[in-house]
Amino acid sequence: MKKAIVLTSGGLDSTTAMAMARDQGFDLYSLSFDYGQRHRYELEAAHRVAESLEVTKHLVISLDMRAIGGSALTDDIEVPKMRSHKEMEDSIPVTYVPARNTVFLSYALAWAEVIQASDIFIGVNAVDYSGYPDCRPQFIAAFENMANLATKASVEGGDRIRIHAPLMDMTKAEIIQAGTRLGVDYAITHSCYDPTSGGRACGQCDSCILRRNGFIEAEVDDPTLYDQKPS
Amino acid sequence: MKKAIVLTSGGLDSTTAMAMARDQGFDLYSLSFDYGQRHRYELEAAHRVAESLEVTKHLVISLDMRAIGGSALTDDIEVPKMRSHKEMEDSIPVTYVPARNTVFLSYALAWAEVIQASDIFIGVNAVDYSGYPDCRPQFIAAFENMANLATKASVEGGDRIRIHAPLMDMTKAEIIQAGTRLGVDYAITHSCYDPTSGGRACGQCDSCILRRNGFIEAEVDDPTLYDQKPS
Repeated sequence: MKKAIVLTSGGLDSTTAMAMARDQGFDLYSLSFDYGQRHRYELEAAHRVAESLEVTKHLVISLDMRAIGGSALTDDIEVPKMRSHKEMEDSIPVTYVPARNTVFLSYALAWAEVIQASDIFIGVNAVDYSGYPDCRPQFIAAFENMANLATKASVEGGDRIRIHAPLMDMTKAEIIQAGTRLGVDYAITHSCYDPTSGGRACGQCDSCILRRNGFIEAEVDDPTLYDQKPS
Repeated sequence: MKKAIVLTSGGLDSTTAMAMARDQGFDLYSLSFDYGQRHRYELEAAHRVAESLEVTKHLVISLDMRAIGGSALTDDIEVPKMRSHKEMEDSIPVTYVPARNTVFLSYALAWAEVIQASDIFIGVNAVDYSGYPDCRPQFIAAFENMANLATKASVEGGDRIRIHAPLMDMTKAEIIQAGTRLGVDYAITHSCYDPTSGGRACGQCDSCILRRNGFIEAEVDDPTLYDQKPS
């Protein structure tokens, strides 16, 4: 069985990407980051997901993103609520963490070298997304190109590194439908950005709104426990 | 004054790169990593260098590279001694840290976004180097390309990120001569990989051999305190 590293946040997207990697027959190595995110429930969700999808190893790496700052996800900045889809598309929100996916993928690449994996899965999505630059297909392609010049394998003639972003062109509804077909239990996932809603979903941040609308469009029952149900 | 982030290890190369950035008139932000390296004297050296070159801010980020493993610089693997130049060129040594420069540059990119810098200096070198894949010019070019798709500025039309690798095509002797012209005090730098030589240089690891030969070729007095002088 070929090994794959799957970046997992415990959210809906990365969990679906992990189920897809599993469905493709990969031996799973899941990688989460403790980067001082204020919504720490996602780390617990990542553990539940890793267990549920029977990964071979789940690694949590501590990152020092707070030292760098610059995001509502790590700093004491209020998470915006009830933004329209248009507002999400028009500007990069304060929840953007500078160069986050670059840092995450770099660690995945390092781990891939050590365990001799050449496949890395990331659940980024360019359709129902929140305006982050490092979720675009051209970013993923450029990272893959760089990765293939960065590693021992690139010098010694090993397998090419592939960055899989299987959700890239899917709507949130399509992602939920695909995951549901693969047996994903979305009740164990956590997508909310708001640290103040105590493990439940706030129902009002970008992430909650995209998720909620996804379930409605997908015509799949939404198992999320909301602190305050979005109208 | 334009801001530049300079990756600094406290070694000879990154110190020279920092002196060059200063000479070009940049406002300096130096960035070091505590990645569980066994030769921890380099972090003290990085502090001395940052002070000596009057940086505006010196940031040390803690990284969890040990969790990933795979290197003599972080794991309990013996650092090789007395390798010939040909041996260094022919194989990637056990001191290689998987994807290290990718991870380091990713953090530099994150910090650059926060402080609104668009220039990053790294002291990699493809001539007198130790066979690391992530020290090659094609790697640096690919990283720069990726960086310009990863950030807010790439979406919002800000300045292009530039990765400066001013030592890339220089021999160790040329680096030492350039640094000496810029007034670098190499006595405060630390290049040795061996954690057992107590703050002095072992004189026998790849790094010590390249450094020592550089001073001889450059015809510059070597201020390094050796534990055991190389023959």
